[in-house]
Amino acid sequence: MRQVALVAVAAAVATVAGVAAYIGSASGQSNGDAAPIYGIKIPDGYRDWRLISVKRLTGAQDKFKQLRAELANDIAFKAFKAGTLPFPDGAIIVALHWTRVPSEYNNQVLAGAFPGAQSFVVGSRVNMQIMVKDSKKYAATGGWGFGDFKDGKPGDEALHKTCFPCHEPAKDRDFVFTHYAQ
Amino acid sequence: MRQVALVAVAAAVATVAGVAAYIGSASGQSNGDAAPIYGIKIPDGYRDWRLISVKRLTGAQDKFKQLRAELANDIAFKAFKAGTLPFPDGAIIVALHWTRVPSEYNNQVLAGAFPGAQSFVVGSRVNMQIMVKDSKKYAATGGWGFGDFKDGKPGDEALHKTCFPCHEPAKDRDFVFTHYAQ
Repeated sequence: MRQVALVAVAAAVATVAGVAAYIGSASGQSNGDAAPIYGIKIPDGYRDWRLISVKRLTGAQDKFKQLRAELANDIAFKAFKAGTLPFPDGAIIVALHWTRVPSEYNNQVLAGAFPGAQSFVVGSRVNMQIMVKDSKKYAATGGWGFGDFKDGKPGDEALHKTCFPCHEPAKDRDFVFTHYAQ
Repeated sequence: MRQVALVAVAAAVATVAGVAAYIGSASGQSNGDAAPIYGIKIPDGYRDWRLISVKRLTGAQDKFKQLRAELANDIAFKAFKAGTLPFPDGAIIVALHWTRVPSEYNNQVLAGAFPGAQSFVVGSRVNMQIMVKDSKKYAATGGWGFGDFKDGKPGDEALHKTCFPCHEPAKDRDFVFTHYAQ
């Protein structure tokens, strides 16, 4: 048992070292704070990346009323489009989560053209989530590192411990829920 | 009155001639059918364009239950991001409309992590709408030409007559409803 624990610690140290190397060597990462555990920063220029798909989350609680979009860098986008699994190293996916608000402006127009229809548009950013594929550095978490940011600041370690368990059920899709929207 | 009608006909002829010239000279347009009135085709590579925003349409009728995304070519994207109005000539916006379907797959995961939350993802493409800015060629319709395509085929003339009236209330935003989502 002790041996297992030591191996785990060694693996953790190796992962931390790997992550540190990643932070040092990765290009295109901004100078903001890094997410705990995985050391991931918000990638430069991510808002210019291409669209994988959009999503709607809903529920009784206001925090679940969201509109979402997933964007991908070139490596991830090509893999999504071709259906390549697992995703190659270097793939990065960002999920943008916004509040959704009714658009009175749009609804006034819809009332004439599409009676009974209602329009909801994005409000403010709730958070953004990042997945970075590096099969060696993040071997313990399916080859993916995770980052969850709000207003440009990463969430705490407790939050980041929830990332991989939440994605684990999607193991048959290389831990990625989103499909490419044709 | 007769003179007014003749002027209108002359303007219409000029517009048609302009549109024909546009079709002939425009690069980056696919070889599919052109939309009536405006002569617009589905632009090559539009699915690789950058994301402006996402939207949800809803209503009692199933046809209103949609998830939507607006993409823009480089000219339009820069204008959206900078808030430039009116949009410069050459700007093209495409709106992708999908059915939205519940994701049982995602919901199984959400049940553990976010009790009470529900996930909806894109189903199949309903249609796509295109706006092309050419302030001279489309002067009669606010400088915009419109195209509405389903399964790669343009809708009929009656459908395309509804495009501009529907966008007219957004005159103060150069006839564009969508805002750039930060």
